Formats: sequence, C-alpha cells, structure tokens
Amino acid sequence: MITIVAKSTVKKGQEEAFIAMTKDLIEASQQEVGCLSYGLYRDLNDPQVFTFIEEWQDQAAIDRHNASEHFVRIVPQLAAFREGPSEVRLYQRLS
Amino acid sequence: MITIVAKSTVKKGQEEAFIAMTKDLIEASQQEVGCLSYGLYRDLNDPQVFTFIEEWQDQAAIDRHNASEHFVRIVPQLAAFREGPSEVRLYQRLS
Repeated sequence: MITIVAKSTVKKGQEEAFIAMTKDLIEASQQEVGCLSYGLYRDLNDPQVFTFIEEWQDQAAIDRHNASEHFVRIVPQLAAFREGPSEVRLYQRLS
Repeated sequence: MITIVAKSTVKKGQEEAFIAMTKDLIEASQQEVGCLSYGLYRDLNDPQVFTFIEEWQDQAAIDRHNASEHFVRIVPQLAAFREGPSEVRLYQRLS
C-alpha cells in the first residue's frame, strides 16, 4: 500500500469553488481499481489549506490514476485555485 | 472525526532510533478510547521524512491523548531526533 498526502493552499475566496471542482475527481477516484481510500480534508485551523489523503494498492494503481480521464481533466484545473505549488508526498506505512 | 497529520524531518542517521522510540507511543495510542487509527509513515522519496496520520473521534479524545502517560513521556524525547519543528495539522474530512 502507498499513501499519498497532497497538501495545497487555496486562494482566499476560492475555497468553495475548489471544493466543488474536486467532487467529480474524488467520486471517480474512489471507484478506481486499487484505490483503497481517497479523501479531501480541510485544515481546522487554516481553512485555506486542503489535503488529499489517498491510499493506493501499489504504484501501478497510482500510475493508472494519474493517466485517468478524470485526473487529466480536473487536476490541471485545480492549479488555478492554488497559491503556489502543492506538496505531494508518497508514504509507506511503517506501523 | 478529526484527522491529524504530523510531519517531521529526522536527522540523518537517527531514523532507526526514531522509529524504535515511536513503537511504544504507537501501540499505546492505538489502544486509546476514541483513537480510530494511528500510523507512522515514511516518505518513499525522502526517507528522513516521517509522518503520523491519526484519526480521532473528537477533540476530547485528542485532549486525552495529549495528556496520556505515553504521550507525555515519549513525544518530548522524539524532538531530539528532529531537524527543526514538526508540522502538525488538524483536519476535518470533507469527502
């Protein structure tokens, strides 16, 4: 299993539009083969910070995801809402 | 539910000692009332970066955790292994 934590800061006033844009991405991603979980989280203390926490069976599942129609269509559009780049980290669970 | 993502960079050469130090903390935390999950993750691309991803029932469960014997005993000791402060964020899951 590989866990992805992808954190972004969204421009002030664009938060609701960002959330709306992610809906299709989340619903489609959750249906993908090899997707164990896929959620969007909002920082309780800094409401401009949003993080995807995703669990994938393996790298092949991630590769399929990154090539999927919904990823290719939606993820580039999310960039317009962000302040600066997102921080994307791939993790292995230790315990 | 509140999700905590706590990311740290560990000093080079201290990684195994850091992992060993977290064992008791993780095992005890996973047993706590209100702890839905509690895991330690290692960045696949930057092996000095470690992140706890924790799911708690509510803030009261987090408050109990922060006052627990294992937290008070172990967490301060983890600081010695770190390069700089950890980044701790509390999240609400949106979808």
